[in-house]
Amino acid sequence: MRSDSLPLVAITMGDAAGTGPELIVKAFASAALHNLCRPLIVGDAATLERALGFTRSSLKIRALSAPDTAVFEPDTLEVLDLKNLDLARLKLGKVDAMAGKAAYEYIKVATELALTRRVGAMVTSAINKEALNLAGYHYDGHTGLLAELCAAPDATMMLAVDNLRVSHVSTHVSLREAIERVQPERIVRVLRLTHKALRNLGIVAPRLAVAGLNPHAGEHGLFGNEEEQFIAPAIAQARRLGIDASGPFPGDTVFFRAMQGEFDAAVAMYHDQGHAAVKMLGIWRGVNVTLGLPIIRTSVEHGTNFDLAGTGRSDPRSLVEAIKLAATMATPRT
Amino acid sequence: MRSDSLPLVAITMGDAAGTGPELIVKAFASAALHNLCRPLIVGDAATLERALGFTRSSLKIRALSAPDTAVFEPDTLEVLDLKNLDLARLKLGKVDAMAGKAAYEYIKVATELALTRRVGAMVTSAINKEALNLAGYHYDGHTGLLAELCAAPDATMMLAVDNLRVSHVSTHVSLREAIERVQPERIVRVLRLTHKALRNLGIVAPRLAVAGLNPHAGEHGLFGNEEEQFIAPAIAQARRLGIDASGPFPGDTVFFRAMQGEFDAAVAMYHDQGHAAVKMLGIWRGVNVTLGLPIIRTSVEHGTNFDLAGTGRSDPRSLVEAIKLAATMATPRT
Repeated sequence: MRSDSLPLVAITMGDAAGTGPELIVKAFASAALHNLCRPLIVGDAATLERALGFTRSSLKIRALSAPDTAVFEPDTLEVLDLKNLDLARLKLGKVDAMAGKAAYEYIKVATELALTRRVGAMVTSAINKEALNLAGYHYDGHTGLLAELCAAPDATMMLAVDNLRVSHVSTHVSLREAIERVQPERIVRVLRLTHKALRNLGIVAPRLAVAGLNPHAGEHGLFGNEEEQFIAPAIAQARRLGIDASGPFPGDTVFFRAMQGEFDAAVAMYHDQGHAAVKMLGIWRGVNVTLGLPIIRTSVEHGTNFDLAGTGRSDPRSLVEAIKLAATMATPRT
Repeated sequence: MRSDSLPLVAITMGDAAGTGPELIVKAFASAALHNLCRPLIVGDAATLERALGFTRSSLKIRALSAPDTAVFEPDTLEVLDLKNLDLARLKLGKVDAMAGKAAYEYIKVATELALTRRVGAMVTSAINKEALNLAGYHYDGHTGLLAELCAAPDATMMLAVDNLRVSHVSTHVSLREAIERVQPERIVRVLRLTHKALRNLGIVAPRLAVAGLNPHAGEHGLFGNEEEQFIAPAIAQARRLGIDASGPFPGDTVFFRAMQGEFDAAVAMYHDQGHAAVKMLGIWRGVNVTLGLPIIRTSVEHGTNFDLAGTGRSDPRSLVEAIKLAATMATPRT
């Protein structure tokens, strides 16, 4: 495959007080990802230069002022340089409004590149929500921010590790609020988005499992009735739409069953139900895919890891997998 | 070790319409468990005889009318025979009040044997809560029933797989009710019981992690405040009692961290948070330990598996591990 037929993928640098910059340097230490995509970092070139030192990398950094000047050489990281950090002021491992503001700007620019089809997909590094909030951007994380930038309020999150895929009816809200969000229209919407995403990944007839909200999926009403009231009707409605959905199944075993191959994806009713299961497969392995956006977006499934910032010891596997998945989704199917 | 110095362990047969009887037969197919304990099945001898056929077992069944007549030969299953099932009426794989009543009676008798120190521990097979309810016994499962039989209302559940141990602030209640139960006195009680159980397993200074209730443990109040209001004060109080408790930690990664060896146990705030994590290690591998009883009790961590009843294809690993753990806990430390 000729390099210029590979999908263009924008990668945001994330919160500069965390491990984002050094993870990017580590992910591109080998040329493997260059065989799958043409990568464009959206970040701050001076910060990435410094990260080369943390990781003893021999890569070169090339600062760009416009995306169309990139040439994609495997030994060079090309950075659309927003020059929005003052390294002398930045303290590694600390919540910092400057880093929060900068992280916001990387996301905004990368999203615009994706929306205007100047890149085929975007991959995001970890941000710190407190820093984002301190900088005046009040979002529940990437998902809500991207939903706003893309004018797509129905976006939701799917986690993927190998063939285990878990999408969520809600994510970054309190558990009390999450219970209120277990409503048929939301569940059907998540089922539709999950069905569509799996079709885009090449699965012709995706088999979707739906978790219950209560222990043992309510055990026939003994421990709560949201299953009968809201979840079962949503599954019935999705089936009428031609989606192969089943459940509600007990939330403690449905993800294991999906991992074993019984289903192509499972729908969790709230954040920890799905996340606790997926992360048992390894904190560093998961990839986050946003469903319901007009663009392709994947993300690392870990935080900024302030405690490791500057050490070069952080693990780039989730970022590597996120870039691979974005490249797969952005590659036209023949 | 002479056989008569091994701990006596009572094993209940569970719901006879499920896989309980055949799992017991499979667990004792080899003599391995006889090297760890002296087993006494509490059940129905005719039902176990039939299960020999399902599993093509060459074991012999010996029906006892009193526990002190057991002789513990490895090729023989000795059953304290309650003669409380009419096999001609029992339909495999169906909820049945007769089987629910019988299962209740096995638990009652085994608990009395344990309370009066005629056995050193008890291990329970799976029951069907609907059958129990149909028979007029209204409990949330084994845990509540044992709490009543032992007059120990503070009992709670710990799951164990290898060195991952997860105890729960609540289990078989709706998620709405589970949130109400996140109160300092309950959390401290679970921490004390978990600390004590790990000490009994030989861990001198157990390191306990506590999960948050909300996603990301509330992310400093952004998604709920139960962490600051209830969980952090409980951890502080437990530390004043000399317990090495820490957290609250995000519920999606704390169990992975415990599995990796950072903690000896983790406390989940509700059923699916802990169970979804543990069961990713294999539905058939977990053991359930009841904390806070005056007796030692472990249990299989799966259900009755009505769909497999009578096939001989069910997996006895959880029962084998439950018997091993009960035997370990009942063996005096020298």
